[in-house]
Amino acid sequence: MSDTKILLDESEIPTHWYNVVADMPIRPAPPLGPDGRPLGPEALAAIFPMALIEQEMSTERWISIPEPVREIYRLWRPSPLCRARRLEQTLGTPARIYYKYEGISPAGSHKPNTAVAQAYYNKQAGITRLATETGAGQWGSALALAGQMFGIEVRVYMVKVSFHQKPYRRSMMQTWGAEVLASPTDITESGRKALAQDPESPGSLGLAISEAVEEAASREDTNYSLGSVLNHVLLHQTVIGLEAKKQFEKVGDYPDIIYAPCGGGSNFGGAAFPFFADKAAGKEVRLVAVEPASCPTLTRGHFAYDYGDTAGLTPLMHMYTLGHDFMPPSIHAGGLRYHGDSVLVSQLYHDGLVDAVAVPQIATFEAGVTFSRCEGIIPAPESNHAIRACIDDALKCKETGEPKTLFFNLSGHGHFDMAAYDKYFSGELEDYDYPEQAIKAALHNLPKLASAG
Amino acid sequence: MSDTKILLDESEIPTHWYNVVADMPIRPAPPLGPDGRPLGPEALAAIFPMALIEQEMSTERWISIPEPVREIYRLWRPSPLCRARRLEQTLGTPARIYYKYEGISPAGSHKPNTAVAQAYYNKQAGITRLATETGAGQWGSALALAGQMFGIEVRVYMVKVSFHQKPYRRSMMQTWGAEVLASPTDITESGRKALAQDPESPGSLGLAISEAVEEAASREDTNYSLGSVLNHVLLHQTVIGLEAKKQFEKVGDYPDIIYAPCGGGSNFGGAAFPFFADKAAGKEVRLVAVEPASCPTLTRGHFAYDYGDTAGLTPLMHMYTLGHDFMPPSIHAGGLRYHGDSVLVSQLYHDGLVDAVAVPQIATFEAGVTFSRCEGIIPAPESNHAIRACIDDALKCKETGEPKTLFFNLSGHGHFDMAAYDKYFSGELEDYDYPEQAIKAALHNLPKLASAG
Repeated sequence: MSDTKILLDESEIPTHWYNVVADMPIRPAPPLGPDGRPLGPEALAAIFPMALIEQEMSTERWISIPEPVREIYRLWRPSPLCRARRLEQTLGTPARIYYKYEGISPAGSHKPNTAVAQAYYNKQAGITRLATETGAGQWGSALALAGQMFGIEVRVYMVKVSFHQKPYRRSMMQTWGAEVLASPTDITESGRKALAQDPESPGSLGLAISEAVEEAASREDTNYSLGSVLNHVLLHQTVIGLEAKKQFEKVGDYPDIIYAPCGGGSNFGGAAFPFFADKAAGKEVRLVAVEPASCPTLTRGHFAYDYGDTAGLTPLMHMYTLGHDFMPPSIHAGGLRYHGDSVLVSQLYHDGLVDAVAVPQIATFEAGVTFSRCEGIIPAPESNHAIRACIDDALKCKETGEPKTLFFNLSGHGHFDMAAYDKYFSGELEDYDYPEQAIKAALHNLPKLASAG
Repeated sequence: MSDTKILLDESEIPTHWYNVVADMPIRPAPPLGPDGRPLGPEALAAIFPMALIEQEMSTERWISIPEPVREIYRLWRPSPLCRARRLEQTLGTPARIYYKYEGISPAGSHKPNTAVAQAYYNKQAGITRLATETGAGQWGSALALAGQMFGIEVRVYMVKVSFHQKPYRRSMMQTWGAEVLASPTDITESGRKALAQDPESPGSLGLAISEAVEEAASREDTNYSLGSVLNHVLLHQTVIGLEAKKQFEKVGDYPDIIYAPCGGGSNFGGAAFPFFADKAAGKEVRLVAVEPASCPTLTRGHFAYDYGDTAGLTPLMHMYTLGHDFMPPSIHAGGLRYHGDSVLVSQLYHDGLVDAVAVPQIATFEAGVTFSRCEGIIPAPESNHAIRACIDDALKCKETGEPKTLFFNLSGHGHFDMAAYDKYFSGELEDYDYPEQAIKAALHNLPKLASAG
């Protein structure tokens, strides 16, 4: 029997990231300032190092990965591509199912792929501190790890309700030396304003972003770091798909359909974009972004300019959005809660070059449990979205008899998400079908400025 | 630069386990029944399948690993051998430090190496259910995983205080389909007796063992499964050391000193025994069992026949022991709490063929944090014991200038142990030097029958 895991040597870690912009038939629209005019690089220089701003705006196809970044990648990369034979057998499908396992990173997800690059470029630019926000803690822990690797201090504004409910992600960040504050804090103006309105405020991701951005903008030694959405973040994540392509080559196979969870888009972009390069060259491959039915940005949102945060402090981005003050219903347990989506993913979806499906949450946990009972690994709730969509197609293959090759990104493990599994097992999870009225209402909150949707 | 991780192909997963008994100059003393006479295989047949009983008593050097067991091993094995270069640099040591990372198993530790084998042999013997005990849940989750892989039901008696304090290991077991009960229960006589004495009993590992053994002994379809101590358990764990030897060969290196945590002994035996084969053939290599100062079985216990459990239901085993009613002080946060030790490890230690050191707990967490800040991975508290001893010797090498090769078993990750890290960071952890008087008092509790110490 051929191997279960398709491994690469460390020498096969990609030497370049792939920039999908080079192959997009319609280039992404630029970010706009509050005056409605395209932003120049200088507008971002207060919170990002120039190297990352250049990547954000680059149209070059290949961007070299600095050796010190590859050096840190070597602590866990290349990640394995695995053939899910036991899952195939259990489903009784003729499909071949593969998954890329990013949960082997010390932080337990794909997030360090960009955190390490961001910490490196900031270090190179003389920055000694990074400020960021985190919800459940997956991104915060990735940046804490990366900061530690390059000797950069990291301060994480963690949404207060998560700070108290998910203490172990916080402990993880502290183990890697990061300072973790419950947001809202009283050390930023945004925080103080929120606390004045509600001293018991549980915080929100949008508010935590505002605090981190405010700190970065106001301190010379400090920059801001974001874990998804932005072009350079998706760029860094392409190591996932680039490795996967080499691994498929090794076994003489190639995916017919690729699935990845899609919140801000870095998970999906990282896994799928390198295959888009082939698609742009004529190869037939379907790229499926899988999102929660309770936060259906691509499948039910509007393609328009909108803010990246709740308070409207960020540039306007041309993306699918549910409105920048969208909050997923409280019954939504997992991540993928962002109101918008990567500009790159949005443009490609708008142009019909990538697909999207929304899946209800109970079905995602059911898929995750099925997977873990076959393959062992307990997936992160985000990853369960991709597994659900993949299993659905594998079952279709069973009906049609088609031996398709299916590939999903198992972006992380669920070791810090077992409370969500508990809810699933105890029947406390609910599905939520977002009412059309609420989706429409979000339109009214879009900035007046422009809408290309 | 050479690779950080030394990988093997799945074809290089060992085909045989190594049985150290074949190379021991003094063979281990046999287990005794309540009448003081050596136990025959039939005495164990009520709770173990014959294949495991044969392995328990075997003197063959090599025992073939069944193909279906290797098939499951392939879900995560071979595990990587990693060179801890960033740790070496941080310590400024000329020593070369390697670690074997067993935390990549789905259960997050080395425990599935034997759980999978035990589930397989029980399945072969027509057994459909396994009963076991677990404290913090590491062993219970390994057996839950293994049971699921072979379609065997698993019931885990989980010490009640852990059941409530560590709900996420419980969730993990449920994800893999196991039934988890808070011990003491009212479904066994041992449990009912304990509850009659104290309805609020928090439970203990010894009591949970009694419940699991009682269930296994009373049901035809059910056997018992143990996660450490026994010869066959250590045998199965030798895949760790066997792989490591191949990996050292690949880079042309060989360890001068090997460190592994030591509680019941399967962690240490698994990593060290395959190297003992070389030592027995004249090679110079030091094998160091690292135990907690607050449960100093090898370094301060007695070499004598004692029971394996608190209640005295198990056979008598000839081992180092602190007395079968020993309880580590409540300030002890990690695992490695067993009062006794593997008969094999005990005999080798008694004969001066393996070494042991006891380390205080605060220092183990300090070592674990240092490690994770260099190498990323957050180790299990048990693994921190080995890291502490290794770092201590690496610092000695710095003084002497000796470029020794040091190797430790990173037996698991700490994702489910972050509460212990929290205690370390908040200064709540204490060290405990076990008073000589208490150690002496334990002598009086040893069974009268025999003492070879």
